[in-house]
Amino acid sequence: MDKQWKYHNVKQASRGVLLVEFNRPPVNAFNDSMWKELRSIIDEIATSPEIRVIVLSSTLDKVFTAGLDLNAQSELNSSALDPARKAIQLRDHVLDFQDAISSLERCQIPVICAMYGTSVGLAIDLACACDIRIASQNTTFGIFEVNVGLAADIGTLQRLPKIVGNESKVKELALTGRKFDAPEAKEIGFLSDVINGGRGEVIAAALEMAKVIASKSPIAVIGTKHLLNHARDHTVEEGLKYTATWNASMLQSVDTITAMKAVMSKQIPNFPPIGESKSPNSKAKL
Amino acid sequence: MDKQWKYHNVKQASRGVLLVEFNRPPVNAFNDSMWKELRSIIDEIATSPEIRVIVLSSTLDKVFTAGLDLNAQSELNSSALDPARKAIQLRDHVLDFQDAISSLERCQIPVICAMYGTSVGLAIDLACACDIRIASQNTTFGIFEVNVGLAADIGTLQRLPKIVGNESKVKELALTGRKFDAPEAKEIGFLSDVINGGRGEVIAAALEMAKVIASKSPIAVIGTKHLLNHARDHTVEEGLKYTATWNASMLQSVDTITAMKAVMSKQIPNFPPIGESKSPNSKAKL
Amino acid sequence: MDKQWKYHNVKQASRGVLLVEFNRPPVNAFNDSMWKELRSIIDEIATSPEIRVIVLSSTLDKVFTAGLDLNAQSELNSSALDPARKAIQLRDHVLDFQDAISSLERCQIPVICAMYGTSVGLAIDLACACDIRIASQNTTFGIFEVNVGLAADIGTLQRLPKIVGNESKVKELALTGRKFDAPEAKEIGFLSDVINGGRGEVIAAALEMAKVIASKSPIAVIGTKHLLNHARDHTVEEGLKYTATWNASMLQSVDTITAMKAVMSKQIPNFPPIGESKSPNSKAKL
Amino acid sequence: MDKQWKYHNVKQASRGVLLVEFNRPPVNAFNDSMWKELRSIIDEIATSPEIRVIVLSSTLDKVFTAGLDLNAQSELNSSALDPARKAIQLRDHVLDFQDAISSLERCQIPVICAMYGTSVGLAIDLACACDIRIASQNTTFGIFEVNVGLAADIGTLQRLPKIVGNESKVKELALTGRKFDAPEAKEIGFLSDVINGGRGEVIAAALEMAKVIASKSPIAVIGTKHLLNHARDHTVEEGLKYTATWNASMLQSVDTITAMKAVMSKQIPNFPPIGESKSPNSKAKL
Amino acid sequence: MDKQWKYHNVKQASRGVLLVEFNRPPVNAFNDSMWKELRSIIDEIATSPEIRVIVLSSTLDKVFTAGLDLNAQSELNSSALDPARKAIQLRDHVLDFQDAISSLERCQIPVICAMYGTSVGLAIDLACACDIRIASQNTTFGIFEVNVGLAADIGTLQRLPKIVGNESKVKELALTGRKFDAPEAKEIGFLSDVINGGRGEVIAAALEMAKVIASKSPIAVIGTKHLLNHARDHTVEEGLKYTATWNASMLQSVDTITAMKAVMSKQIPNFPPIGESKSPNSKAKL
Amino acid sequence: MDKQWKYHNVKQASRGVLLVEFNRPPVNAFNDSMWKELRSIIDEIATSPEIRVIVLSSTLDKVFTAGLDLNAQSELNSSALDPARKAIQLRDHVLDFQDAISSLERCQIPVICAMYGTSVGLAIDLACACDIRIASQNTTFGIFEVNVGLAADIGTLQRLPKIVGNESKVKELALTGRKFDAPEAKEIGFLSDVINGGRGEVIAAALEMAKVIASKSPIAVIGTKHLLNHARDHTVEEGLKYTATWNASMLQSVDTITAMKAVMSKQIPNFPPIGESKSPNSKAKL
Repeated sequence: MDKQWKYHNVKQASRGVLLVEFNRPPVNAFNDSMWKELRSIIDEIATSPEIRVIVLSSTLDKVFTAGLDLNAQSELNSSALDPARKAIQLRDHVLDFQDAISSLERCQIPVICAMYGTSVGLAIDLACACDIRIASQNTTFGIFEVNVGLAADIGTLQRLPKIVGNESKVKELALTGRKFDAPEAKEIGFLSDVINGGRGEVIAAALEMAKVIASKSPIAVIGTKHLLNHARDHTVEEGLKYTATWNASMLQSVDTITAMKAVMSKQIPNFPPIGESKSPNSKAKL
Repeated sequence: MDKQWKYHNVKQASRGVLLVEFNRPPVNAFNDSMWKELRSIIDEIATSPEIRVIVLSSTLDKVFTAGLDLNAQSELNSSALDPARKAIQLRDHVLDFQDAISSLERCQIPVICAMYGTSVGLAIDLACACDIRIASQNTTFGIFEVNVGLAADIGTLQRLPKIVGNESKVKELALTGRKFDAPEAKEIGFLSDVINGGRGEVIAAALEMAKVIASKSPIAVIGTKHLLNHARDHTVEEGLKYTATWNASMLQSVDTITAMKAVMSKQIPNFPPIGESKSPNSKAKL
Repeated sequence: MDKQWKYHNVKQASRGVLLVEFNRPPVNAFNDSMWKELRSIIDEIATSPEIRVIVLSSTLDKVFTAGLDLNAQSELNSSALDPARKAIQLRDHVLDFQDAISSLERCQIPVICAMYGTSVGLAIDLACACDIRIASQNTTFGIFEVNVGLAADIGTLQRLPKIVGNESKVKELALTGRKFDAPEAKEIGFLSDVINGGRGEVIAAALEMAKVIASKSPIAVIGTKHLLNHARDHTVEEGLKYTATWNASMLQSVDTITAMKAVMSKQIPNFPPIGESKSPNSKAKL
Repeated sequence: MDKQWKYHNVKQASRGVLLVEFNRPPVNAFNDSMWKELRSIIDEIATSPEIRVIVLSSTLDKVFTAGLDLNAQSELNSSALDPARKAIQLRDHVLDFQDAISSLERCQIPVICAMYGTSVGLAIDLACACDIRIASQNTTFGIFEVNVGLAADIGTLQRLPKIVGNESKVKELALTGRKFDAPEAKEIGFLSDVINGGRGEVIAAALEMAKVIASKSPIAVIGTKHLLNHARDHTVEEGLKYTATWNASMLQSVDTITAMKAVMSKQIPNFPPIGESKSPNSKAKL
Repeated sequence: MDKQWKYHNVKQASRGVLLVEFNRPPVNAFNDSMWKELRSIIDEIATSPEIRVIVLSSTLDKVFTAGLDLNAQSELNSSALDPARKAIQLRDHVLDFQDAISSLERCQIPVICAMYGTSVGLAIDLACACDIRIASQNTTFGIFEVNVGLAADIGTLQRLPKIVGNESKVKELALTGRKFDAPEAKEIGFLSDVINGGRGEVIAAALEMAKVIASKSPIAVIGTKHLLNHARDHTVEEGLKYTATWNASMLQSVDTITAMKAVMSKQIPNFPPIGESKSPNSKAKL
Repeated sequence: MDKQWKYHNVKQASRGVLLVEFNRPPVNAFNDSMWKELRSIIDEIATSPEIRVIVLSSTLDKVFTAGLDLNAQSELNSSALDPARKAIQLRDHVLDFQDAISSLERCQIPVICAMYGTSVGLAIDLACACDIRIASQNTTFGIFEVNVGLAADIGTLQRLPKIVGNESKVKELALTGRKFDAPEAKEIGFLSDVINGGRGEVIAAALEMAKVIASKSPIAVIGTKHLLNHARDHTVEEGLKYTATWNASMLQSVDTITAMKAVMSKQIPNFPPIGESKSPNSKAKL
């Protein structure tokens, strides 16, 4: 899967773990091509049964991403349509942009976001669409959309309040557009960990966590991500019923028996990838 | 907008920022007239395009509010109707009371709640309906309704679990009716900040934050509050779709271009109020 | 109500407070009979107006519960049905298991979960279905389902993200299956308190809290639990409207007047149990 | 309650029955003042316990209503705001207009809509917000909004598909803007009855039906309307649970016993109005 | 399964088809014991894999059911509790009653309701909880609850508007409490067929339809009922997603292949019952 | 846009109206390639602003479609995966198939379905995803999925009960798998019209209706379809609020003024396509 894309670097870091890095110096400013490329990468990975976890980060030393490419953005407003026709055009554009970022959530395997340095604007939308967020101590966060005269529309306002535990702080950050640092981000529940060091250390920590997850049954991992996202958007009762229907087939997996035996015999289990029934041991290319 | 109401003081603190203070000594006990007056004030502000942020607090030195006026409340139970007819009457009363407190949430501009001293019972309902909550270190909080034999019905039980990150603590506080202090309130995510000092300091901090928000594009600020409240009550997917429809018109604002230009030229932008297209510079009365 | 069940000990600890303890040495491994028994106990308590709070814990010194009895579980997979018929059977089994654990949530009175020692797998599902969770400092938590090749389906994935304030950590814990301790559990909002000491101390603390709640109006307590659970699964607006309908009858309780009078006269009020209108003073057996 | 309003005639037709008629010749074209007046009338009736059913119709011989006053409407588009600020203004206007028409649904007593002659455009929005719709054979219906370049936004598109049984026909009518007659309206489930004759006959039939409803227990009537509207917008399970909570107080009404006794003794029962516990017999003015 | 219960007759009519008849002369008035017995019967059938369709009717010549036993009902109101405690008691009673009637909907196999003669009050609640409703021409229907001073709370108001296509008529019938006949019931979509003749003919027609359904794959039949009921209470998008998860296991049934082969070879397929994988041919007792 | 696709014929019938016909003799049996092609066609049309209405039908004389190609379908079940991995594969396949058929609903312009002859199985799923359905008198309908051992999962069970007015009949048809004809289909509200004649006549009628819709403002037409579909899946209150936000920009269209002027001057208005602001008169190719 290793590949140098126009705006991203993709490389396999260990068995089942793929590192996807933004790569548009100097600040990873996102134009339309860049977020469309990200969607293509994630959608392609989604069809590859050998990949079990994605780590999302950046190639740049000091910048995760500074957010939207404002030059590209300002062109969008120049058409001469009447306000209704322009509204249909803008709405389609926002929906398409959202869909690209939501590929991280839609993708059935977990995505770990490894943040550091400048992580503002779209950085927050991207991180919210991932499953797990960790950041190095030197990270500068900011919901900067209000500073450029708009309400964030690519996911921050929709996902952030559901994944952290302090709505008052979310509103303060979104309404003042001020910067915040990693400890503050952890305190409100945005991060699950703050890592000492910079880019190298946070990526290393994310890859380590990814390795653990990649060693688990893919049926269990995919189900866990799927059911946690389902739970967020449904009542507890709906979530329980849906889970019973989901697990009606998933509990018929060979993995459950394999894993239970491994637990009881204290051995390391080995699980076939999704899409195959034989063990992955034979897959030399991994 | 400066005005001395029967139970409230209202004064403009800076351009676009209005301070609304409870003023019913000795403890700001709320009778029906007082919460109806609060609704009138907030609803009137909502029609004034020049006001961009509200700070809600109290004029009393040691008391934000001690909650309901129990004397007034106990009269409610004296009617001689049969239980069904009385239920209709009580239900209408609760709905009306809820509607008054919800004016803080319904109002399109942000409301910052500056709390200190005694902040119990209805104080929590009021604070939960605001957007941002800060409190001085000396604040005493309490969900006291259980102590007077009733389940809180003006908003605490509905909003509190959605805006903090510890449901176990919410239930403990609501079921035991015990007091809690500002650091505990911050730890569970009820407050975004604890301020050293008392009434003066917390109001000063709230006004400072309000000033920052008032300097932003009103289209961006109104949209951000609106979309965050929408997100709380919808799935992520619903939230995203709605946001695209909302921003289909809002991205056509002149503010987006003004703000982007200001960001790129590192100048301070100036945004016309809602309801006007010219710049607010000429509005001497602000 | 004191009774030695096959897998549980039940004893009344103080007026209105019942202690229910798992009791299946050596590690409280749950087989089907055990969770069916738990449901029977909770459902029976639900019909007893004298009991006002439940404390849920274990009789074992070092173990709250180690979760499912894997031996029992593995039998489930041995039937020779075709995958569709087996899916119907498994689905019914999961729904029944969920229903048993949900009896803790369904039960109208509050349940306090006192955790310590080994508290993994089903322990988390059980705790999430309780209202309040406290744990001793020595507790070892773990969402271990992923380690046995399955997505947790008895409540953890559905309830946990709604009751804590760090979705990133929830996903990390559920996807890696790693252990975590009491301070980490408190930091994310899973616990409302961490207690110094072990089994004895945490049960004592839970019983103390239960005593306070048992002294309140049962109408207020039942309503508070009911409305908080309702709020979790509805929009704020739905929650408010429903509350008005609920309180239309509950505000007609004698408790409201009794409690208000007691507050005003600084006396300790006395409330009749649900199902009776006379004061509980005369009930010698409590 | 009899009163000649600027655009409406209101008169009491029989005990508990109020006839509200549009009265703006020549075609009852609705300007803003007219729909605001309608809301005032309905909201005022809602506070009068003596009125139990409303019949909504028109004073004009051949016209129920021809819909919006297009002259008034076209002014709305002349302001010079930027598209975002104008969007906020238009959105507020639509919400206010919707709120006025929804007063018919919000009002706790039933509203019967008696239609005839020209009944197009806003006529359909108005009728959909009523509880029961009957029409004379000579009625001409039409969802005309598409003909004036807009999607109907005052209720037709939201309510119509939920109250009839042929979505294909609803879409055809809304997308072609063609006329349809009373038998076709009945066939799709829009009307519950088609009346021979014209304005006089259909109003007479509506008043007759209203009289029957006004003779029933107001607790039962209010509850029935309330629960049917609740059911439309909730799942069956939600509807059932809510109904149990609603009837927890309503079954304590004296009416239930009164009515049951009357049924068993085959006498005509007499029910006190909402807001009173004594029998309405003594109310001479009715 | 043939059995004479206290208030019901149960007998197997053909392979996989069970006829359940009310049997409490003279008018099948339901007291608490009767609806609890109905639940027991339906819940017991639900565990029997050999039964594939239920037909619900009555043993009496002229009466399906006249509804509630008012004598039994009036006792409920005599307790001396305060209105809040009584509300809890009444609410529990209504929820229990609803749960009993909902057993018809909850049961995984289809229930056909064969109605005739007097079919009023609870008859409508019962019929709405069934899947298919047919009636003989001589049937007298009525939503009579409003006539006894209460809003129907056992299912009519919640289910009826969702299963017919004329909300105006539903409201008229529920608010006037008037009788209606079979053709009117069919016209609004309550019945799928009106049968010439009386009790005998309508039961025969129902049994004939049941026989056809019983000959289909039980996996397909159970899934169809389950997914149609799910669809009623969810958005189309939710319904589609859930269906994909449901069919992920159900499409692995042997029935799909068996049926497809039978279709292609024009033979009558034979499907094993739920809970068995072998063909039902060998089951002599059916 | 005229094009001969592998399995479909596409030709422009009049200005803004496109006829899309299935074309896979002898019975339009759908294999995977065919429904993927249909999605490609519809998605491509969706980007063409000149097309305003689609008519969906078939090129075959006697067959709209006989549904799935069972030969193709049966291959799907041959993989050797364990039931959990196979479930993931089947689920993805069903979701993809649903997505293809839902392109008809997702597409912003209206789709009219012109049915005749054999219209069974997938025919119903396809028709339910269209906006308007008409059929010739000779049409044979059938929900045949139950006959091949499966619950319909491509849309029939999800959409049909929401678009017709007789749930009892829907369940009967889906559970018995029997045929039904056009008058019965119209009676339950599945069709808005039954056309005398066969394929030619029903297509002619559909094209005539399409022409009328194509002459209306595209802003009004797109909004009407969008809002009606939104209404189906939301409460009335949600629908009203969303409509106000949608129309906040759409009411700023030039079409509203153009259409109002045309209405007042009794002239035929001319509306620019979506994506253009100038009048379509100059577009010779149409």
